[in-house]
Amino acid sequence: MRFTSEQRLDDGVLEREFTLGEIPGILWTPASAPAPLILLGHPGGLPQMYPRLAARARQCAAEGFATATIELPGGGDRPRSATAEQARTDLHRALEAGQPVDDEIVDRLVLPLVEQAVPEWQAAIDALLPLPEIGGPVGCSGGVISIGIRLAVVEPRISAAVLFAGSFVPRTVFQEARQVTIPLHVLLQWDDEGNDRQSALDLFDAFGSAEKTLHANMGGHTGVPQFAGEAAAQFFTRHLK
Amino acid sequence: MRFTSEQRLDDGVLEREFTLGEIPGILWTPASAPAPLILLGHPGGLPQMYPRLAARARQCAAEGFATATIELPGGGDRPRSATAEQARTDLHRALEAGQPVDDEIVDRLVLPLVEQAVPEWQAAIDALLPLPEIGGPVGCSGGVISIGIRLAVVEPRISAAVLFAGSFVPRTVFQEARQVTIPLHVLLQWDDEGNDRQSALDLFDAFGSAEKTLHANMGGHTGVPQFAGEAAAQFFTRHLK
Repeated sequence: MRFTSEQRLDDGVLEREFTLGEIPGILWTPASAPAPLILLGHPGGLPQMYPRLAARARQCAAEGFATATIELPGGGDRPRSATAEQARTDLHRALEAGQPVDDEIVDRLVLPLVEQAVPEWQAAIDALLPLPEIGGPVGCSGGVISIGIRLAVVEPRISAAVLFAGSFVPRTVFQEARQVTIPLHVLLQWDDEGNDRQSALDLFDAFGSAEKTLHANMGGHTGVPQFAGEAAAQFFTRHLK
Repeated sequence: MRFTSEQRLDDGVLEREFTLGEIPGILWTPASAPAPLILLGHPGGLPQMYPRLAARARQCAAEGFATATIELPGGGDRPRSATAEQARTDLHRALEAGQPVDDEIVDRLVLPLVEQAVPEWQAAIDALLPLPEIGGPVGCSGGVISIGIRLAVVEPRISAAVLFAGSFVPRTVFQEARQVTIPLHVLLQWDDEGNDRQSALDLFDAFGSAEKTLHANMGGHTGVPQFAGEAAAQFFTRHLK
């Protein structure tokens, strides 16, 4: 991991861009260090996602957490995959035609992303945990839910996860949900235009965790209310501190 | 309203029993007065429910809220209704036989209770609001959900409600849910043995409120985790203060 820029934000949070091999990433650390680490997920495209990610990072820093994120495969300036692009085209074609989305399209779109991204996030944990500013357990928050599920299953350093309900979970990943045992806090936007509510409820039901909480709020995909963010922060405070 | 006993609990909360006509009730007020009032619902039977009610009252008092409850029609020492007793017998017979519960049984059991209880809780608000220890808006929390729904519709002094998901909501009350517009915080125990999950989700969907949040947690009817109680308290703090 190599730091490429550093700036101190006005609330005292230190924001550093880094590269992990070819993968760009950002680390935010609060003044109070060492701090537990929360991995911030996103749908890909760090430059466009930056304002929302930085806002989440500052909210987490105010609660005493460090946060980090890395670019997804195919996101931002990272090389596109022809397979994923074709699957995305097929998905949009099905959605625009008002047709159900074939499992096969979801598999082609999401499975290679999960296969590639999860080891990258694990490499990010490897690189971040030795830093003196980072200490304690690791949480992950949001982003592509299939990546969060796989990470929760395969990465024992992740102690708790906030998942943002999403459709288009491959059947194999849905099955893996039963193997998740860490505490979960699942956010569901009740009227999410791009999210099938029943699928999200079925997925919540499938998780194997003894402690799992579903917080459903009104509004569309990007309408998560401020208080829902605060509740997620309290979940991490319970489990990472 | 006539106070019949008074004791100061060890955390400084003043607990007073009262009667409202023939109806017994309890009022808890925190040291910080005047305080907003939260009506504590319950399934009937104040003497048996007292330990849980007092615990909720003390948690609310710690957040700066006064709380009050009254006995339900047919609960505790209040006269039983032959109609309600017969409906309860029919309900238990259906449940024990593993049969679906007829809407007609639910109507016989719940509608007269709602019809009688709601004006009594409104009379309690009338009697409590003028007290110098009480000030600000009123919330209601838990208890028979059909009573909470009707109160939320007909009583404009109630500004926010925490509802505990329950089955056996009469069809007419389900329809009234669409008229509820106050902020709602709905608790659902995901594995509630006495509660049909899909009915609870349908009811949540039906509420007309622009702000409504569903918090689903693992466990059975009485297994609401401590942190879910804290989240409900934060909801009241957002809306009653």
